[in-house]
Amino acid sequence: MTFETQALGERALSRLDALAAITDEPGRITRLYLSPAHRRAADLVASWMRDLGLDVSEDAVGTVRGLMPAGRSGPDANRKLLIGSHIDSVIDAGKYDGCLGVVAGLLVVEELKARGVALPFGLEILAFGDEEGVRFPTALSSSSALTGTYRADWLEATDSDGIKVKDALKAFGGDPVRVRDCTISPDSAIGYVELHIEQGPVLEHQGDALGVVTSIAGQSRFRLTIEGEAGHAGTNPMPLRRDAFAALAELSVFIERIAREGTAGLVATIGKVAVHPGAPNVVPGNVEATLDIRAGADAPRLAAIDRIRHEVEQIARRRGVKIRLERQTDVPTCPMNETFQSKLASAIGSMGENAKSLPSGAGHDAMAMARSFPAAMLFVRSKSGISHNPAEFTSVSDLGLAVEALVRFVVSLGEPAA
Amino acid sequence: MTFETQALGERALSRLDALAAITDEPGRITRLYLSPAHRRAADLVASWMRDLGLDVSEDAVGTVRGLMPAGRSGPDANRKLLIGSHIDSVIDAGKYDGCLGVVAGLLVVEELKARGVALPFGLEILAFGDEEGVRFPTALSSSSALTGTYRADWLEATDSDGIKVKDALKAFGGDPVRVRDCTISPDSAIGYVELHIEQGPVLEHQGDALGVVTSIAGQSRFRLTIEGEAGHAGTNPMPLRRDAFAALAELSVFIERIAREGTAGLVATIGKVAVHPGAPNVVPGNVEATLDIRAGADAPRLAAIDRIRHEVEQIARRRGVKIRLERQTDVPTCPMNETFQSKLASAIGSMGENAKSLPSGAGHDAMAMARSFPAAMLFVRSKSGISHNPAEFTSVSDLGLAVEALVRFVVSLGEPAA
Repeated sequence: MTFETQALGERALSRLDALAAITDEPGRITRLYLSPAHRRAADLVASWMRDLGLDVSEDAVGTVRGLMPAGRSGPDANRKLLIGSHIDSVIDAGKYDGCLGVVAGLLVVEELKARGVALPFGLEILAFGDEEGVRFPTALSSSSALTGTYRADWLEATDSDGIKVKDALKAFGGDPVRVRDCTISPDSAIGYVELHIEQGPVLEHQGDALGVVTSIAGQSRFRLTIEGEAGHAGTNPMPLRRDAFAALAELSVFIERIAREGTAGLVATIGKVAVHPGAPNVVPGNVEATLDIRAGADAPRLAAIDRIRHEVEQIARRRGVKIRLERQTDVPTCPMNETFQSKLASAIGSMGENAKSLPSGAGHDAMAMARSFPAAMLFVRSKSGISHNPAEFTSVSDLGLAVEALVRFVVSLGEPAA
Repeated sequence: MTFETQALGERALSRLDALAAITDEPGRITRLYLSPAHRRAADLVASWMRDLGLDVSEDAVGTVRGLMPAGRSGPDANRKLLIGSHIDSVIDAGKYDGCLGVVAGLLVVEELKARGVALPFGLEILAFGDEEGVRFPTALSSSSALTGTYRADWLEATDSDGIKVKDALKAFGGDPVRVRDCTISPDSAIGYVELHIEQGPVLEHQGDALGVVTSIAGQSRFRLTIEGEAGHAGTNPMPLRRDAFAALAELSVFIERIAREGTAGLVATIGKVAVHPGAPNVVPGNVEATLDIRAGADAPRLAAIDRIRHEVEQIARRRGVKIRLERQTDVPTCPMNETFQSKLASAIGSMGENAKSLPSGAGHDAMAMARSFPAAMLFVRSKSGISHNPAEFTSVSDLGLAVEALVRFVVSLGEPAA
């Protein structure tokens, strides 16, 4: 940690604090897509971009874009590297999630200028508006628009007040008719890079400040229902019971073991559980639960699902209960670009830091961006892995290290191949 | 099954139907303690008793009593055998629970008269009003009054409308000041016998119509809370999790195994479960659950609790979670009188039926009555063990067998010892 990276971290924090002050709910950070706070945050980011001399625009779905042309000629002079993340938030959010990736992009521009680096390609800083998917039932719609994969039906989706995306867009200053104009052709960008807090405990546990994302985890989500038979807790002998909760418990222990044995960071979670009728003196007759399975590669995730399905049949047969495991979503693993990964690792290594490789268990705009561009993500340590919560925290020195690594990565992309 | 027992069953059913027609909620059976429907049911029972020539009274807590004096002289001529059960019900009840024991008592009187049996002791038929404990937070208060164990604070207990027991009693025609007068001294009764539907599946599973209760199961009830750490379901690797639900699942599997290995009909139930924060993509941070443990003898129940407490410590240590197991109620096993048990078994055997011995997992007025008197219970098969539900069902032929067994038991008590 040098004096310079510490100062870089302080500059990042100062901008994060400025964004954190913009909220729809005084007293806590809530900045939903296309809300008044989102509008003000977009305006602030645009003003920062203008101060840096960028060519600023806002696309039809509300993404703020700031372009810095290539600093020198060459074959990529008309192409650009995309750097960004999102400025929307969950309800009662922390201040790092999303905003850090946008702020870091601006600091990269500042540092390149300060260090007199002329890149052989342009830079475009992106501040997406719809990553969290809290207000509308959409997913990564801003970055999807940029890759030409925006779904037409998203415009008709409504928030809890019945307001449609298309109407909210118009009120925001966007244009639902021009969503296609948001698209950046795959040829015109050399790639996308996103700095984000880890939102997990792995880096902290390993004692590393920075990590290079290998892939964004594939995810399968299931609805699990078990139908047994309710009965009096005193009068039903154990061998005659068809206890739906006992069946779930057995399945849960199996699922946990499978996940622990799995590779590629396989994780499985039973997060929501409802037990019916739910009385202390009644054997549970029905259970509903959710099962979420993720891994940094598809094969271990799919193999785990197969093993779980087999065990479900065994448990159902042995216990005389019905178990349904209905797949609700299935998102394949999104591998990050390997060249970018290795250049990120080199940038981190050049600072004397260890470059931990890890999958991202959470989804990010990089998933949508990877549809069109080589994409990469840099993770920075977040305290106790806490996110989506005011207790979200990354130290100033880690912020500085992260921005410095991003600067070095960008610079390295402009250097001739060794 | 003879023509006569079938007819006896039909007579029982006819009276059960008459009581079932009396409800506080048209369309379903709901007869809470001291409600208008309870008043009408008590009046109907009293009228039936009068028709049988019994000496009818209603005690200070609303128990209807019908006395038939001894039919012949002897040392027990001034003592009586108590036969009864309760006429209150749960909400949306079946028609057999409780009422059958009262109706059977009346049919015993009818049959003794018809068969010209003169008993050397009196009979008192009892229709208790507060067994289910639904309206007020009291437990077996009618039968407790009869054994002098009514708790003074019960009079101050309130229902959900804020009405106190003492005021409801006055409106019903009872007298809170005279609760002590309800007491029947231990010397003045030779015992208490109660016919009840099993409310469990054991007799049906064994293919037996009738069972003799060995004891009313002791019961321990616990509140179980597990405190782990909530986290993102995608970003928290399995080894770093402190998943409260996974801890509960492991404990549940252990508890189920312990119960299956237990003796004296040991049963253990996790009936109520709440998982927090309860989102599909969040590792559960907190869990609250209930644990209900019962057995027909105290030793296996207490041994199971010790083993569970030990396992709780192991799981808490291994998983880094906090587990609290707080005992909320602890009711010791209530053994039934052995002489009565053997005479009930002989009565059943004399009909060519198998007399299955089994513990009662549910509580009954016989628990309170056993404080003062030799007490016994006869169980009759109930379909699928369903109770506290309109689907509660016992066949007419089983009703007939049950009443006939009770008649033969009463007659046998009056015969000289072999």
